[in-house]
This record gives sequence, structure tokens and C-alpha cells, in this order.
Amino acid sequence: MTTPANTAPNPRRVGIWIIGALGSVSGTVALGLALADASTQSGMVTAMPPFAPLQLDSLSSFTVGGHDIRPGTLFDSVLLLHERSRLFTYQQLSQSQPTLEQWSANIRPGVILAANPTIVNMSDSRRVQAVATPRQAIAAIQADLQAFQRDQQLDQVVVVNLASTEPPFEAGDMHQSLELLQAQLDTTDRVILPTSSLYAYAAIDLGMPYVNFTPSTGSSLPALEELTRLRKTVVAGKDGKTGETLLKTALAPMFAQRNLQVLSWVGYNILGNRDGQVLHDPANKASKVKTKDAVLASILGYRPQSQVAIEYIESLDDWKTAWDHIHFEGFLGTKMVMQLTWQGADSILAAPLVLDLARLTLFAQRRGEVGILSHLACFFKSPMGSNVHELARQWQLLEAYLASCV
Amino acid sequence: MTTPANTAPNPRRVGIWIIGALGSVSGTVALGLALADASTQSGMVTAMPPFAPLQLDSLSSFTVGGHDIRPGTLFDSVLLLHERSRLFTYQQLSQSQPTLEQWSANIRPGVILAANPTIVNMSDSRRVQAVATPRQAIAAIQADLQAFQRDQQLDQVVVVNLASTEPPFEAGDMHQSLELLQAQLDTTDRVILPTSSLYAYAAIDLGMPYVNFTPSTGSSLPALEELTRLRKTVVAGKDGKTGETLLKTALAPMFAQRNLQVLSWVGYNILGNRDGQVLHDPANKASKVKTKDAVLASILGYRPQSQVAIEYIESLDDWKTAWDHIHFEGFLGTKMVMQLTWQGADSILAAPLVLDLARLTLFAQRRGEVGILSHLACFFKSPMGSNVHELARQWQLLEAYLASCV
Amino acid sequence: MTTPANTAPNPRRVGIWIIGALGSVSGTVALGLALADASTQSGMVTAMPPFAPLQLDSLSSFTVGGHDIRPGTLFDSVLLLHERSRLFTYQQLSQSQPTLEQWSANIRPGVILAANPTIVNMSDSRRVQAVATPRQAIAAIQADLQAFQRDQQLDQVVVVNLASTEPPFEAGDMHQSLELLQAQLDTTDRVILPTSSLYAYAAIDLGMPYVNFTPSTGSSLPALEELTRLRKTVVAGKDGKTGETLLKTALAPMFAQRNLQVLSWVGYNILGNRDGQVLHDPANKASKVKTKDAVLASILGYRPQSQVAIEYIESLDDWKTAWDHIHFEGFLGTKMVMQLTWQGADSILAAPLVLDLARLTLFAQRRGEVGILSHLACFFKSPMGSNVHELARQWQLLEAYLASCV
Amino acid sequence: MTTPANTAPNPRRVGIWIIGALGSVSGTVALGLALADASTQSGMVTAMPPFAPLQLDSLSSFTVGGHDIRPGTLFDSVLLLHERSRLFTYQQLSQSQPTLEQWSANIRPGVILAANPTIVNMSDSRRVQAVATPRQAIAAIQADLQAFQRDQQLDQVVVVNLASTEPPFEAGDMHQSLELLQAQLDTTDRVILPTSSLYAYAAIDLGMPYVNFTPSTGSSLPALEELTRLRKTVVAGKDGKTGETLLKTALAPMFAQRNLQVLSWVGYNILGNRDGQVLHDPANKASKVKTKDAVLASILGYRPQSQVAIEYIESLDDWKTAWDHIHFEGFLGTKMVMQLTWQGADSILAAPLVLDLARLTLFAQRRGEVGILSHLACFFKSPMGSNVHELARQWQLLEAYLASCV
Repeated sequence: MTTPANTAPNPRRVGIWIIGALGSVSGTVALGLALADASTQSGMVTAMPPFAPLQLDSLSSFTVGGHDIRPGTLFDSVLLLHERSRLFTYQQLSQSQPTLEQWSANIRPGVILAANPTIVNMSDSRRVQAVATPRQAIAAIQADLQAFQRDQQLDQVVVVNLASTEPPFEAGDMHQSLELLQAQLDTTDRVILPTSSLYAYAAIDLGMPYVNFTPSTGSSLPALEELTRLRKTVVAGKDGKTGETLLKTALAPMFAQRNLQVLSWVGYNILGNRDGQVLHDPANKASKVKTKDAVLASILGYRPQSQVAIEYIESLDDWKTAWDHIHFEGFLGTKMVMQLTWQGADSILAAPLVLDLARLTLFAQRRGEVGILSHLACFFKSPMGSNVHELARQWQLLEAYLASCV
Repeated sequence: MTTPANTAPNPRRVGIWIIGALGSVSGTVALGLALADASTQSGMVTAMPPFAPLQLDSLSSFTVGGHDIRPGTLFDSVLLLHERSRLFTYQQLSQSQPTLEQWSANIRPGVILAANPTIVNMSDSRRVQAVATPRQAIAAIQADLQAFQRDQQLDQVVVVNLASTEPPFEAGDMHQSLELLQAQLDTTDRVILPTSSLYAYAAIDLGMPYVNFTPSTGSSLPALEELTRLRKTVVAGKDGKTGETLLKTALAPMFAQRNLQVLSWVGYNILGNRDGQVLHDPANKASKVKTKDAVLASILGYRPQSQVAIEYIESLDDWKTAWDHIHFEGFLGTKMVMQLTWQGADSILAAPLVLDLARLTLFAQRRGEVGILSHLACFFKSPMGSNVHELARQWQLLEAYLASCV
Repeated sequence: MTTPANTAPNPRRVGIWIIGALGSVSGTVALGLALADASTQSGMVTAMPPFAPLQLDSLSSFTVGGHDIRPGTLFDSVLLLHERSRLFTYQQLSQSQPTLEQWSANIRPGVILAANPTIVNMSDSRRVQAVATPRQAIAAIQADLQAFQRDQQLDQVVVVNLASTEPPFEAGDMHQSLELLQAQLDTTDRVILPTSSLYAYAAIDLGMPYVNFTPSTGSSLPALEELTRLRKTVVAGKDGKTGETLLKTALAPMFAQRNLQVLSWVGYNILGNRDGQVLHDPANKASKVKTKDAVLASILGYRPQSQVAIEYIESLDDWKTAWDHIHFEGFLGTKMVMQLTWQGADSILAAPLVLDLARLTLFAQRRGEVGILSHLACFFKSPMGSNVHELARQWQLLEAYLASCV
Repeated sequence: MTTPANTAPNPRRVGIWIIGALGSVSGTVALGLALADASTQSGMVTAMPPFAPLQLDSLSSFTVGGHDIRPGTLFDSVLLLHERSRLFTYQQLSQSQPTLEQWSANIRPGVILAANPTIVNMSDSRRVQAVATPRQAIAAIQADLQAFQRDQQLDQVVVVNLASTEPPFEAGDMHQSLELLQAQLDTTDRVILPTSSLYAYAAIDLGMPYVNFTPSTGSSLPALEELTRLRKTVVAGKDGKTGETLLKTALAPMFAQRNLQVLSWVGYNILGNRDGQVLHDPANKASKVKTKDAVLASILGYRPQSQVAIEYIESLDDWKTAWDHIHFEGFLGTKMVMQLTWQGADSILAAPLVLDLARLTLFAQRRGEVGILSHLACFFKSPMGSNVHELARQWQLLEAYLASCV
């Protein structure tokens, strides 16, 4: 492992390129990077002492860029969050404003080829690069990525998908090998790759680490895994585990270890941010509910009646609130109840994990790792390369990795 | 290890002797043993497949006896629980009645030397064996234990403390070695051992396994550990982990592993059974709150503001209800909230764990183990012989033990 | 008003005829009437002192009969509730069994003409009186009602609809007058009246008081109101207010009176009894959600974002659980939150109100009242003859009625 | 009644003088008055249409002054609230700053004669006017009040007590008549009046309306009622009803009106502002718990087991959180549960009610009313001059008053 030259005259400079750069999570990531003060340590896993020996990139070595299909600036995003959800203090806002305005110049119009109607309705035509074929889309994205790295003089760039959730995508034969997929890249008459996968292709093909923080397809196709290995880069995903599912994977083992039969586990989620709005489209919602529901059966070893509802409640904005009702049976058939409510600011929970993933994927690539980073399972609802859902066991995977690095 | 002769013409017969035999947990233990049907599998850890290879004593091989300072029968106890807390169905009650009435004949008056006033007020003078010295107390208890084993023709007897919580006891010099302690056993002018330790002494001295399911002192004195080794028996304790603390040890690691700073963790417990009534005496309550509160700092590595209140609310009877409010800080200093409520029937949660501990200590003794069984940490709020509080890690200790046995 | 001759040699005998006689609410009503002891006073509004001067029919003067499309007895119903939901004690069950078995003989097969598929699937063909026209249906029902009154020698009979919720029914021109409706009673080729209205017609036409405890149409058609006045009887409805809606009508005025703007009111209901099962059919569910949602706008004077979800969770059986999340805005635009959970046994909440309504409608008819009893608004989610939803104001309507009676 | 000359060249100017002027509620009151924009309408009862005909003083006609024993400015108070509790937006803060700084010049050092140790510890010696006798204290306070009215050219001044809660004060013979009390005003050797009553005396004696928003004694002594009538002014109190008690008085009637027996009502309140800190002193806490607990018995007509705990949890700051567990018995002795959690910002809830009370007492005095304003019962936990606790009935008292004014 090459030690980053923190004290050298030319310190490392790295970039984080965000797909969906003007969303709430992205704004919060950028604000955190712009501040890079003590308040950014809470909630960031890699800020904890066991990670110190890795000498991960410091927050102040990051520059932000990205794609979005909406107009606006990073500061606009965080100011709106402040007003609607009472996130961030005045001091944080005023202190970060200059840097956020500067980084906003790095945001490029999104590339749209196969987006779904809800997404298209939210977009602004002046903020879209219209392309005709997958190959053109990939080329357009890559041009933006390369310009960012060159203009900002960055040693490494990680690409993170924070765009709105897509509907589920059914992979076919052509996605099983890179050769078959590449043969179709000039197709114009049907959708051969979801938008998230076009961005993933573009990033991976340039040898950049790629993180999928959403339940969309992204890099999770055999053809793109092949490309990942070919370009000697790393990927991690998918669907950041920030709220109700995090709780489930911490709590469900308790019921298993006490032999308390879970009769039903009902989860009701309400939220009011753009993520919630996109979920109003039933097709988009399906992706989300699917990844949320699989976890339980995997941990318990049986499938209790379960219900995962997500509703868009505008007034909540970023304050995602979940009620879980767990009905379980104990000795002599007695039914008992546990209820919990979770009130978390979605962006505040997600942003530090995005930074963790950026730092750990950049580190892994520098270290020469290739492919899916399965030791990052604890960050995801649907961990790629791992069947482990139990939080405690996922944590041990990460601890083992740390031990192997030092 | 000697394999229990499950198919032999004379199957093993074992006894469980309960201190506090007419309490709610004890009644539920007895009802479960009397039924020994499918409904007794839920909530019992040792009923799970990984324990099958150990060939633990089957529920139907148990006979029940015990001490209590109140009059009544085991069936009275469960009927009262049914009427006040709606536990047990009519079928369960009517089916178990004959066996419960029969076992009630094995219950002997309690031995009182140094009990505190609240306990004394609850006792019935006809149900007390008054003794003058610790030595006499131990002898009286031992006479009852030996008669039980002899009359019921039992291969092994385990003694379990389910009596009401005592006030904290401060150990002194004389408790540091068996020799020093034994020299004081004829003292009449002051309390040299709490009641729970008199029973523990009696049991251990007869070479019987001893389980302390309460926060009282029991066997947790160096002198009694010495006796345990001398008599080649095993002990486990203390304070069964059945409700709010169980949850804490499952959930607190999640906050640690996400680097979410717990600002305050407030727990408010209400319950209406005899356990709650005893806690009305502030001295008794102190023991309970103490063991509940230590867990958090141990898991988090720091001490958030925490509050553990326990109140006696008569109408709840056995339905122990806990509200926990967890205030935590995430990225950029944002405060977020998780709340949970737990509605568990105390006896229903505790009884199967008592059976687990009875089976596992009997097994360990047969296997030739001696001393504190630290692999049973997952069953206790204050595990003896272990500093591990995190539920997932405690579980791994038990898994490792299982692996070592087969 | 004629004073009921409580002390006369031949005391009054009254009957309650229940549509849906083998459901959980009906079983609980019957068990309460069979016991008629102190435990039946809780939850029954008319058991309170202010109602004493009315000399309502005592519980012991009631005989139970009814229609159902399923086989079984009243005792079967309550035993199943006991086993699945832990309602009733053994003493209550054993004491009421003889009376319940005797009343079960009064239960007649249901009459089906236009029921919806979910209901039909639940029915047992041997428990159905198949009829070809509305007129035949009404005649068949009336024959059963008359036989009940005659055989049991009853002074008065009240008919209560406790059958499963029907899909919404759209009234047409023919339902605007009794003459127009009667002209269609021999129609065979389409549904002119929902099942609930056939029963209502039959009862009202015999001059019997009719109570609709469900959201189904029942007597709420102008033609049936005309018939009510013609036959000099009384009706009350509809949709018993037992849980979440009761809470809303008690709590929402608080927000109005403090000028706290309700931004969103989300209610999530889970239940596992037959009522819940019927709601699985989206058409049936629509009726329920509709009456639940109207209440809020009526009280607040504006329409906050609201969401009322109802899900069938089998393990809950009769324990209807609701979570409400109320997001409101206070001074300076600050958003605040109130959450509540309600864990009520549906049958236990409904049954005493059914008895209240039976007693108050029988009383009103004896007193010579005619038509819709609007002073009973506090019992219903969609009170007939009243726009008042606020619980406190509904209560004052009832108090005013009491004052007018004495 | 004199109509306020809203359109006259010299509009009315009024003052609000706050005892405890640098607390959170006071800061929020001042910020609201400084803004006087649309965001100040929510949560203020008198902003609702039915109050329009009264032509109450507009928010922009108010000037703020007060006493406090701590240093600092109004802007300091609100900025601290913003940082710790995330109240107020940047825009609100920056817009109100100039006015708040200007009003801070009107804040005078507090007068201390008989305060308790906790209060004294919180005070800054430079911010205290030390006096030797009650008469001197009253004179010092009056000098400040008169200077405020004169310097700011105010038509009317209302004095509001928002200071920290005092321990309960036992009234004696001397408090039964003004004559007896006045005879003691030069006493130096013992406490004859609590601090809150010294301020109340001073205000009332000058003919100024006095509002006691705390549970302290204030004007609630017969001698001070006599003074109120003598000086032809008005008083209202005591203990603003902003959170858990508000809920109780809205919800408890529901249980009464359904004849559901409340078995136990447990309330657990946690908060982290100065109010909470003061409650750490058990003597101060007693006042608070006392007024909170009386309400239930008054509404239900019986006294269920009840528990009201208040704990200081620093991290919560102004976000007062309450958990209520209501255990109630329905038909056939079935126990059911309702739970609620309330998360309200204490200052945000209290401040608009303070403005309501200021406006309504100024109005009443102008109208010629004298004495205790019992129609303001809905604003208080312990309404002076009224036994009505039920929120709906309190509201009707206010409605009746409105009707009588127009």
C-alpha cells in the first residue's frame, strides 16, 4: 500500500462525482466536505479510531462535481433543506456558501436516454444532454468525467449514484457478458440499459471506482462486473442502509437468538423529500419495497407475515419517519409486541456513509483491489457480493478487512 | 462426555428446585414443564436445532420443588396470572392442573435469617423456618434439598434463585476466602450473608448446580466461587436478561457501528407484578437499576446521559412495558430520535430461559465442567465471568461452546 | 313515556336480532348478555349513572337471535376469540356456555341475493337461504324475525347489522321514494338493493328498530327513511366509532382550538379478524377508508394531507392496532409531532356500544320517537342525521336528549 | 368599551413586561413580536377569525421589556435556542436581530429577596437588585415598570411571569387580607411572600394586568385578589397548558364518555431547557407535578393510579418530549392500552399563548373588567377562578365570552 503523502508539498487531490448532484443527500455531502470540521465526524464510520491506520483521504482533499437534470446550485439545495427540514445552522450555511458556489460550477446537465416518465417530468430540458444511443450516452458522460479530473487536477475520482430510484430492470441474455452487451450499444429502438447502468458503464470503463447508493441497477449486471475486472477498478452497492432496514438487521437477530417467533413485522415509512416523491410512481416504489423486505427472511430463517409501506407525506420533507410493529410469540404461545419509531433526517444519515464509501473505494483501488468490495456489506440494504444481512456479522467482515490492511 | 441414556429402561430424572417457588416466573416454569408440549418450544433457546446434539434433559424428565415464604400452590399462582394478565388458555390450565397440584407438595417453607423488611412483610409466619445462625440456615435448606432428591429419586438437582430482588450487599474481607467465611457462620449479631447467598451456599455445598436469575448476590462472592470449585459444581448468573436490557444490548452496537453519538438514552419501565412491588422499596430498586445501567457504557465506550426508571403500576401485572427514548447525533451535529416500546409478559419471557439455564448447567456438570459458566453470558444482565454485553458477541460465545461440545 | 314495569310479575322481554350473528362482535355481545354481571358495566355508556332515570331494558331481559351465512355456535365464536386473542377468562367462558348454546338455536341461515364475491366465498351453502328477488329476500327475513318474536315471547325486537362491510353502493333515482323502490322489488336481472338494505327493509317494515353498526348502506336511503316514518319505528347508524376515529374526533379539536395547523395526519391500522380479512377485497376497503377520512376536514375546517391505511395482519386477530402520526405547525412555522398507538380489542370495544344502541333505540321507540335518532351521533363514524363529528359536541347532544327525557 | 383607534394618527402603543425576560419563551415571544409576519399566526389562538371583531392590539403595537437575573440579550437567547434546538430559520434570525437588540436595552436586573438556592446559583450578582424588605422589592420593581411605560410612551403595560418555577408556597393568615399583608411588608427576618408574588404585587398595585404563566404563587393569594379589585385591573393564571396536560384534558373526556375505566395513566416527561434544569431541585419540581396531576381526577370523577415524572435530559433542550401510557378497562374486564408521544418545542408552544394572554388581558382591562379572568381557563393547567379542566368545555367558556363582547 502506498502511503498518501499528507505532509508532502503536493498533497493528493481527489474528486467525488455525484449522479444526482443537486439532491438533498448530495447537498449534504458537499456541505460536509466544504466544512470539514469536527461536526462532520459524527455519523461517519471511517472517522472512528480503527480506521486511522488506513490514512484515508481527508475530507479537505475532496472536490465535488456531478450530473443533474435540474437547474440550481448546491447552496440552493442545502438552503431549501434548512428551510423545510430545519437542518444545518446558520453558521454552517454561511461558512460553506463560498465553496458550495464554486463547486456548483462543476455540475453538468444529465444525460437522458431511457429514464422513466416521473424522472423526465422532474427534469428541466435545458439541464439535459439528449443522446440517441447508449454508446453516445456513455461517451457524453465520460467526456464530463474526464474534463472534471483534468481541470481540477485530481489524482483519483470516485463516481457515486445518488439519483432517484428507477423501476426494477429485468436483466436479459445480453447482460451476461461484456461482449454481448457491447454489441448492442448502438441500439436505438429499445431500452437495453437503465440510466443508472449507463453512468456505471461510463465510470467503470474509465477505471473509476463506482458506488451505487440506490436500489437501481447500476453496476449490478454480469457484463459490468466483467468490465470492472477488465478496467481494474472497484464497485460497491447497493441501496444505502440508513434507516428502517438498518434497524431490522440489528434487531431481528435478537428474536432469532431468543427463539421468539416473529409472527408479523409491519413497517410503515413516511417521508417527504424528492426520494418520497419519486416513490409515488408505483414502478419506482417496487424497487424500494423489494430490497427492504428480503432482509427479514434471510436473518430469521423463515418468512413471517411482513408489510413494508412507504408513503409520500410532503410536510415531513427530509425527516423520514418509520413505525415498526413487531408481533412475536413466546413461551406457551403468548403473543407479545415491540414497537419502534425512527425519526431520522435522510440526508444526514446518508451523507456520511457516502463519504465513507468514497474514501474506502478510493483506498481499495489504490491498494490494487479489483471487483466488488464485499467487505462493505454493512453499508447496504442489498449488499453486492455478500449474503450477510445481520448487522453484527457485516461489521465483523469490515473489522476483518481492517485487520488485513494493517 | 457421557451420553444421557434416553432410550434406557430407567431414563434420567432431574429436579429443578426454585427459591421463590410460588412467584409468577416459577409458576410459568412449572406449567411449561407440566405441559411439555409444542407450545413450550417458543422462547426456549435450547429448543433450537443447534442444541439437539447435546441431548439435554427433556422437559418431561423434570420434577419441580422449591422454597417459598408465602402459602399457596403452583396452580394458584398460574390461575392468578391468568385472571390478572390473561396469560395461558383454558386448555393449558386444565391440562396442567393435576401435575401442578402434585408438585406443590414439594414446596417447603422458606428460611429467613437476614431478609429485609419488605420481604418480611410479604411473608406468612407459618411459611417460614426461623433460624438463628447462618450455619443453621444452610443446614435447614440442605435438609430440604436432600429430601427432595431422595424422595423423588432424582439423578441431579439444579437450584435456581427466582426470589424477589434484595438490596445491594457490600462484600467485605470475610467474603474473600471460604476459610474466613466459614469461621463466621455461627455469628448471630449481624448479617454476614444475604439470604440469596445462604441458599447459594447450601446448594453449592451439596454439589448442585446453582443459577442466579436475579440481581441479588447469590453465589457472586469469592468465597462461594472457591466452594463451587471445591464441590466440583457449576454456577451461572446473574439477573436474567429478558426485556429492556436485552434490547439495549442488541441495539446499542448499531449506534456504535454507525458512529452515531448517543446523546441520551432514557428508559422508563412500568410493571405490576410482585417484582415491581418489591422495587417500591428504594433499597431493592437500587440493585435493579444498577445492573440495567452499566450495559450501555460498556457497549458504546462512553457514557451518554442515561436514565433508567422503574415504577410499579398495579394494573399492568405481568405485562412489563418499557419506553426507551434514544437521542443521537449524526452528521453535522444533527440530533435524531429513536423510540421503542416493549410490551412483554415478564414470566413468559423469563420462564423458558430458566429452563435453558437448568438444562445447560445440568449438562455442564455432567460433562465435568467446574466453576462459573461464562459461555452463558447471553442470558444475563450482569454476566458472571464475562465482560461481554453485546448480544451478538455473547451469542457467538455460546455458539463456540456448542461447537466445542460436539 | 310509559315506565317499563321492572317490578311487575311479567317483566318485559326483549330481543336483539343480529345480522352476522356468528362474528366476533356478536359473540361478545351474547357473552355479555349471558353473564350480565359487573364485568359488563365497563365500556357500556348506558351503564353510567346519568342513564339510570331512563330505566332502559336490563341486560338480563334480552334474548339473542340472528342470521349468519356460516355454521357454528355462539360459544364456538367466543372460544376461538379466547384462543387467538386471549379475550375472556375461563370463568366467563364456562359460566356463559349453557346460555350461549341455547341462543345458538335461534340463529338462522342468511339470505343471499346480491352479496359480493368475498362474502360469498366465506359462506357455507348449507347456511344460506337462496332467493330470487328482493321481495322474496325481505319476506324470508321477515319470517325469521316474526318467528323469533313469537317463539321467544318478546315485547320488542331490535335488529342490528354487524355483518361484514359491503362495497360502496351508489343510490339512484329509484331509492329516492318508497313508491319507486317498491315498484322494483321483483327485479331479477340486476342488483337494486345491497344485502344490508334488504335486511334493513325487512326489519323496518315490521316496525322494528334498526341499528347499522357497519359502513354498509343499510337504512341510509331516502326510500327507507320514508318506510321508517310510515312504520313508526326508529333507526340509527352508521359505522360504530370504536377506535382510531374515536380518537381523531377527541383529539382533532385540540389542534383547532390551539390554532396549530395540522400539516399531515397519517393513520395506519392493522388488524387480523374477519373484519380485516373482508377489507382485503379493495372494494370493501373503500367504504371503510371513506368514512374514516371525512371526519378530519369536518373538524379542522381544512383538509390536511391525510392517509388512512388498513392492513390485514393475521396474528393480531381481534387486537386492532393503530399508529397515528400527526405533524403540525406552530408559532414561527415550527413543525412538531404527536404520535399515538392504540391497542384495542375490536369486539370488546364494539359490543357494549351495540348494547347501548339496542337499549336506546328500544327505549326511543317505546317513547314514541320516529325516524333517525340523531342524538346517537357519538356512537358513529358517519352519524346519520347529524353533521357533528367532534366527540365533545356529540356528547352534549346526548346529554341534551337525556335532559329532555326526564 | 373604547375602540382602539387602529386608523388614528397616533395608534395605540402597548408594552409587555416579562419577568424572566432572557428565557427561551421570552426570547421567542420577542422574536415573534419583532417579526409580526404571517409565520406568527400559527399557534396563536387570538389570530383566528372569531377574535377579529375584538380588535385586539396588533403584534406590531407591542414593545418588550422585563426583568432578569442573568446577563445577555434577547438575541443571545434566540441564537442559543437556534443552535441547540434548531428553532428559527436564518431569515427569521437576521430579520429580527435589530429589534431584539433594541428591546434588550429595556431589560432590568431582577430583584431578589426570597429566591431559592437553585435560582440564586443561576443568577449573576451584577444582574440583581438586592433589597432588604418586601416593600423595597415592590418599590424597585415598580420604578422599573413606570420608567418603561414612560420612556416608551405606552398606553398600557401587561406584566407576564415567565420566570423559573418556585417551590410550593404555603399561604398563611396574613395572606387572607390586603390589610394584614401590608402590615408585614417591612419584615426582614422571614419570607412573607415568594418572589413571584412580589412582582405580582408591584404590577397589580400599579393597575397593570398581570399574567402568571408558571405554577408559582404569583397573584393567587386572597390579599392580592383584593388588591386587583382595588386597583381595577385584571389577572389570569396559572401555569400555561402547552403540552402533556393539554393532551390529557382533550383525551381524558373520551374515556369518561365511553365509560372506559382508566386503570392507570402514566406520564413521563423529558426536557432539557432551563425549565427542566430548575426542576432538578426537588422542591421546584413538586409545584409542577402537583398541577399536572390534579387534572385527571377532576375530569374522570375518580382517581386512577397515575404517575407524572419529569426528568432533565440535557440533549433535548427545548424539545419537551412526553410519553403517556394509558391502561384502561373495557367490556368484560378486558385491559387495553393507548400510548402517545408528544414532541413539542416548549418555547414555540408557549410563546403564542403568552401573546394571546397579553392581548386578551389588555383588552379586558380596557373594557372595564376587573379581577380574575376565568374565561381564560383554557390557557392554564390550574385555571384561576374556574374548576373546569376539560378542554372542550374551557373552549366553550371562551366562545361564550367572545359572544358577549360583540
